[in-house]
Amino acid sequence: MKNIMLTIEYDGTNYSGWQLQLNAPSIQEEVEKALHKLTGENIKINGAGRTDARVHARGQVANFYTEATILPERFSKALNGLLPEDISIVASQEVPEDFHARYSAIGKRYAYHIYMGQNRSPILRNFSMQVSYKLDLGIMKEASELLLGTHDFAGFMSTGSSVKDTIRTIHSIKMDLKDSSLWFRFEGNGFLYNMVRIIVGTLVKLGRGAMTPQQLLRMLEEKDRSLGGPTAQPQGLYLEKVYY
Amino acid sequence: MKNIMLTIEYDGTNYSGWQLQLNAPSIQEEVEKALHKLTGENIKINGAGRTDARVHARGQVANFYTEATILPERFSKALNGLLPEDISIVASQEVPEDFHARYSAIGKRYAYHIYMGQNRSPILRNFSMQVSYKLDLGIMKEASELLLGTHDFAGFMSTGSSVKDTIRTIHSIKMDLKDSSLWFRFEGNGFLYNMVRIIVGTLVKLGRGAMTPQQLLRMLEEKDRSLGGPTAQPQGLYLEKVYY
Repeated sequence: MKNIMLTIEYDGTNYSGWQLQLNAPSIQEEVEKALHKLTGENIKINGAGRTDARVHARGQVANFYTEATILPERFSKALNGLLPEDISIVASQEVPEDFHARYSAIGKRYAYHIYMGQNRSPILRNFSMQVSYKLDLGIMKEASELLLGTHDFAGFMSTGSSVKDTIRTIHSIKMDLKDSSLWFRFEGNGFLYNMVRIIVGTLVKLGRGAMTPQQLLRMLEEKDRSLGGPTAQPQGLYLEKVYY
Repeated sequence: MKNIMLTIEYDGTNYSGWQLQLNAPSIQEEVEKALHKLTGENIKINGAGRTDARVHARGQVANFYTEATILPERFSKALNGLLPEDISIVASQEVPEDFHARYSAIGKRYAYHIYMGQNRSPILRNFSMQVSYKLDLGIMKEASELLLGTHDFAGFMSTGSSVKDTIRTIHSIKMDLKDSSLWFRFEGNGFLYNMVRIIVGTLVKLGRGAMTPQQLLRMLEEKDRSLGGPTAQPQGLYLEKVYY
């Protein structure tokens, strides 16, 4: 019995998300179907992060156990021949028996793409959120630094999550502007449900002058989701990397 | 009667190309349908460039004549409400009666996106051509400079074109590498059918060591298409701008 780790890239546009669901297409289901075709086994995979509908990944990670005698490094190529073109296995390798894609993770990197344009962009429509008002990037950058470090991020979590421990550490928040594209990169030891999208939506609210850095601090300290901006749209979000 | 110019962005993935065709969806047809809904008139539009199936545009230009009393600048917003989400009118304005999107053009800019990665990229699959072998960008850059200026580009045209005058001027060819993305930008007074894609495919052949700059010169001088590389895939090509 081997424990195999997969690194996965996908275009989430046509899926209801990572996680297996009845009556809705999921990335997990597609990968499990391909594994079944390849090995004949009924394999359940553990994903590192449950990305939502329309969210993308360049470095999602999953692991599974198999009796198959295929060389660990060969799973990627073999699976790519069986997967739809919007899902690709970037790499595969054997990992220790106790490795678990979700519980062994010590950090994650997410990216978020904002398209700053007056008109909707057909080319970027599934890969960014459009913001057509002017943003003060300086104040957004300044405010983002208030979120660095270890905090209780209960105010930055969508309701409905059953997570008890809402303390997380954000290592860095980077902002890069190129042409009309604003890219955020977030690194941290973990992120709550919708946390990245809520931070982005709140920084946008701040950037258009509808909120002050002081109000962001209050949102953090009072753990009050209602003080922030709307949750940014899913199609701008990318799970870039999982750290172990 | 007014002559109106539209600047158009589209994701060409789901179209058979710009030009109206029977039994196949085209960008031209979608824009003409939207114009009919808006004005009640049966309007035929002139496009600046006939992009192929799966080719994209950020700055396609078209013009048409109308009796409608809508303010010229308002056409963009009004049409965007009627167009599918993979087509957007970036701008609209009135132009002189004798302006023709195709015949009045004095130059064009195209971009081409090569994704240099070992694995197919689901996220970029409809927006780039994947090249998985190593490319010598230095020799590609050097060879590209042989194409600058005014030449008979008959060797860089797909067969089946009825164009008589195959002399064109290329003003510039730029190459930018960022992460795994190689972007070309071509500016010239005009491009023959598939010319940009044939240049890219030929530069790639050169970059992987299967051709020399001397052979590129021979291809140009002898007007022999068969000496070049394969025509690069359509989904990496973008019509960026038309100059008037």
